[in-house]
Amino acid sequence: MRYHKIPDETVRRLPVYLRGAIYLSKQGRQNVSSQTLSELLGVNSWQIRKDFSYFGDFGTPGVGYNIRTLIKHINKILNLDVPHRVALVGVGNLGSALLAFPGFATYGFEIAAAFDTDKRKVGKKRNGLTVEDISSLPAIKGRGVDLGIIAVPAGAAQDVADRLVGVGVRGILNFSPRYITVPKKVKVITIDIAMDLARLPYYMPST
Amino acid sequence: MRYHKIPDETVRRLPVYLRGAIYLSKQGRQNVSSQTLSELLGVNSWQIRKDFSYFGDFGTPGVGYNIRTLIKHINKILNLDVPHRVALVGVGNLGSALLAFPGFATYGFEIAAAFDTDKRKVGKKRNGLTVEDISSLPAIKGRGVDLGIIAVPAGAAQDVADRLVGVGVRGILNFSPRYITVPKKVKVITIDIAMDLARLPYYMPST
Repeated sequence: MRYHKIPDETVRRLPVYLRGAIYLSKQGRQNVSSQTLSELLGVNSWQIRKDFSYFGDFGTPGVGYNIRTLIKHINKILNLDVPHRVALVGVGNLGSALLAFPGFATYGFEIAAAFDTDKRKVGKKRNGLTVEDISSLPAIKGRGVDLGIIAVPAGAAQDVADRLVGVGVRGILNFSPRYITVPKKVKVITIDIAMDLARLPYYMPST
Repeated sequence: MRYHKIPDETVRRLPVYLRGAIYLSKQGRQNVSSQTLSELLGVNSWQIRKDFSYFGDFGTPGVGYNIRTLIKHINKILNLDVPHRVALVGVGNLGSALLAFPGFATYGFEIAAAFDTDKRKVGKKRNGLTVEDISSLPAIKGRGVDLGIIAVPAGAAQDVADRLVGVGVRGILNFSPRYITVPKKVKVITIDIAMDLARLPYYMPST
């Protein structure tokens, strides 16, 4: 099943809702109002109601949204109802932080392979994974990996992207501070941490 | 000068435009069309024109937007036309990656101080900064620091947030995977890298 086309900005918020819903579910809650979600997540309650209306308004007046149903819907919309295996390329400080990051499991992601070019890193264990040489990347083809994370310096990013596309990865999370080019069938999301910092001063009134 | 209230989603895209404009400017370009920006940044051209209309449409038909004016406007709107000094708390893998990250300078940010609790890190130099003990945080009060970055484990995040608020920080970029509570006068942006990864499968058609 494919839901109707959903605006990118709503897609951006869905993982936020999902994380909030999982958090509330772990606390033993069954239902949640848009108001409570709003306070927890810092998203306007009308925005939440509008976003949820894209996949059919299943909230009950006075009761709110059923949390299990919410989690099920969002997982299905985001294609998170199937597990995803991720190849990480670049095991420097950032890559190491990503390997140790517990948050991926929340969404059903597993970092299944880690690659680097540094001979001092290749063969070493990191968080239960043995770092492999980048030349071994083609070996992931049979291992069900459909996502890639690029955590290499800017100069190497395009080459790594080409290699990931070459082994059939269909989605790339790019942490390198440069634009990369991929075929249309592959989706790239570029993360620039500085961009998130750059939004902050907007909200700080001049003193 | 304060511009009209701009939607959060536009504020989120402004640093993207700013980065693109700076990139084009460095290539020696004077003007850019919304179409070219769209192709570079992966944002719809109508969305770009709509976003730019919030601060007065200064594009010229057939010529496009003047890049210098664009950079000036966005810097002013985002309050990036004054320099910002940042205190980083947590010098683990992620914090070390942030210290080495060149992208902050693009937006006029300077990481001015780095803190940790680990005695093996305190006193050591990292990217030109001497890591200080977290108990020294109050000493930043006279050093013009108005932003904080939290890169500590979840369990320590709220305590660090309280300390940062206590020394007058008005904006916090939070990388810890938990919700933190701050007074209304302080803005928090929480970064969950897994959330960005969680958006990717939406865009990957089922095979």
